[in-house]
Amino acid sequence: MEEIKLEKGDFRKNIAVAGLGLIGGSCTKALRRTKTGKIFGIDIDSGVLDKAAGCGAIDDGAVDAQAILQKSDIVIIALYPRETIEFIKDNAGHFKPGTIITDTCGIKEPIIEAAIKYLPKNVEFVGGHPMAGNEFQGFDAASPELFFDTNYIITPHDRNSGEGIRVIERLAALIGCRRVTRVEARAHDRIMSLVSQLPHIVAVSFANLAVGEKDMSVFMGRSFMDVTRVSVLNRELWTQILEMNNSNIIDRIEDMIDILQKVKNALSEQDKNSLQILFDNAVKGKRMCLY
Amino acid sequence: MEEIKLEKGDFRKNIAVAGLGLIGGSCTKALRRTKTGKIFGIDIDSGVLDKAAGCGAIDDGAVDAQAILQKSDIVIIALYPRETIEFIKDNAGHFKPGTIITDTCGIKEPIIEAAIKYLPKNVEFVGGHPMAGNEFQGFDAASPELFFDTNYIITPHDRNSGEGIRVIERLAALIGCRRVTRVEARAHDRIMSLVSQLPHIVAVSFANLAVGEKDMSVFMGRSFMDVTRVSVLNRELWTQILEMNNSNIIDRIEDMIDILQKVKNALSEQDKNSLQILFDNAVKGKRMCLY
Repeated sequence: MEEIKLEKGDFRKNIAVAGLGLIGGSCTKALRRTKTGKIFGIDIDSGVLDKAAGCGAIDDGAVDAQAILQKSDIVIIALYPRETIEFIKDNAGHFKPGTIITDTCGIKEPIIEAAIKYLPKNVEFVGGHPMAGNEFQGFDAASPELFFDTNYIITPHDRNSGEGIRVIERLAALIGCRRVTRVEARAHDRIMSLVSQLPHIVAVSFANLAVGEKDMSVFMGRSFMDVTRVSVLNRELWTQILEMNNSNIIDRIEDMIDILQKVKNALSEQDKNSLQILFDNAVKGKRMCLY
Repeated sequence: MEEIKLEKGDFRKNIAVAGLGLIGGSCTKALRRTKTGKIFGIDIDSGVLDKAAGCGAIDDGAVDAQAILQKSDIVIIALYPRETIEFIKDNAGHFKPGTIITDTCGIKEPIIEAAIKYLPKNVEFVGGHPMAGNEFQGFDAASPELFFDTNYIITPHDRNSGEGIRVIERLAALIGCRRVTRVEARAHDRIMSLVSQLPHIVAVSFANLAVGEKDMSVFMGRSFMDVTRVSVLNRELWTQILEMNNSNIIDRIEDMIDILQKVKNALSEQDKNSLQILFDNAVKGKRMCLY
C-alpha cells in the first residue's frame, strides 16, 4: 500500500460538497481545518446552507448547483446513491473542464456506470467510499473528526487517470482517514454486503426479536446494545442500498443462515468439536479484521 | 421498581469474593471505594491474590476458601457456572451461619437448583447476575467502574427471605449498578439467550464469515467491529453457558434464522412493504431496549 503524503499547497483548490448531511457536512468541517481554497456547499435545504455558513464550515452555498460548480475544482457528491446518480446526470454539463468529481456512496458499481454514461470526457469521476458514519443523521451530527482513523476506498475504472485518483487519495488523507485503498467496484460491492449491509440487517433482525419481549431494558447489556446500534435505519438510504446491492446481500444472508445452522446443529448434538472449530475460526476471522 | 437507598453502616460487613477475574476483581475494586468491613479474596491463583492485596483491592486472601469463609458475612461467588456449583457443593459446610451467598453467573436455573440442593438452611443463597462485562478477562482487566450504570438481576427462589434479597440489592447499588430487578430464574435464562447468548453466537458467525475474505482490515467500519466485538469467546465460560442454556439458545437461533429468511424473501421479491414492516418493528424493538 502506498503511503499518501500531502505536499504544501496541494489543496489550494475550491471544493464543493453536494449534500450537507452527516458525511458531506463532516467533509466541510474537516476540510475547514486544512489549507484548501474555498469550500462551497450545495443542498436542497437552504436552512442547512445557512447553518453551515453560519458556523464557518462553508464559505458560500447555494440550492442551485450550477453557479457553485462553475467555481469548483473538486466536487464531492455526498448524496444517497439514487440522488448521486441524478446529480451526475442533471449536472453533467455544468462542471468546469478539468473538475475532479467524487462520491461517497457505500455502493459503487451503479454509480461508476452512471458516471461513465453521463459525464463528458473533460471531467474525471473517481468513485470513493469513506468507511465512516454512525447512527445519526444530518449536518448537526456532522463532525470534523468523523473520518479520523477510518478506511477510505477508491474504486478505479477504465476512464480514470492516475492523477485524478491521487487527488482524491490526498483528499481522503486530508479529512483524516487512516488508510486509502484502491479496489475494483464489483469487489467493493461484494465485500460491503458482508462488512456493512449484513451487520445492519442483523441489527434490524435483533431489534425485531426484541418486540414482544417484556422488560427488555431491564436486561440490557453491552452485547445487545452493540448489535442493535444501527437497527434504526435511515430508510431512504438503506432501501436504495439494499435494492442496488440486492444479489450480493441475499448471498450474504444465506451465508449467515448457513453458519447459524452449523452452530445450532453443534449445540443440538452437543458436538463440542464442531463448536471448537467455529470458535477457532472466529479468532482467525477477528484477527483478519484488525490487521 | 423499588429504589434502593443505602443506609449508613449497612455494609460494615466482611465480604469475601471467590474468583478474582474480571467480575470478581471488579467487585473487590468497586467495594474498596465504599464503606464495607473487610474485603477478602479467594482464588486458585496465589499470584492473583498477591496482586489484589498489593493494589489494596482486598485486605486478605487465600487459595483455601475455608479460612476466609469463617470470617465472612457475605460471599460473592464470581466463578464460571460449573465452578460456582462446585464451590457451593464443596463449601456447603464451611459458611458461617447467617452468611448471605450470591453468585454472578449469566445462567441461573442450574445454579439455584444446586444452591437449594447443597446448602444448609442456616445460610441464604441469592442468585444474582450483574449485567456487566467486556471482551477482556482476568484481574488486570477488572475495574471499579465495570458495574457503573449497568443492570443487575436477582432471581428469587422459594427459600429466599426478603432480607437476604435486600442485602444483595444493596450490594448491587453499592458497586454502582443503575437498576436492580427481580425475575424468576427460568425467565432470566430465556431472555438471556436473546440478549446475551445470541449476540455472542452472531459475533462468532460474523467472524467465521470473515475467514477467507481478502483484505478485511481495509474494509473495516464500525458496524462490523461492533458486531464482532465479542467474537473471541472465553471458551471455558461459553462452552458451559451454551451447554447449560442449550434449549433456549437453540430456540433463539431458530428465531434469528426465521427473521433473516423474512428479510431475504422481502429482498428477493423486491417486496418493499414487508421490508418497511421489518424496519418499523426494528424501531419499536430498539425503543424497548432503551426505556
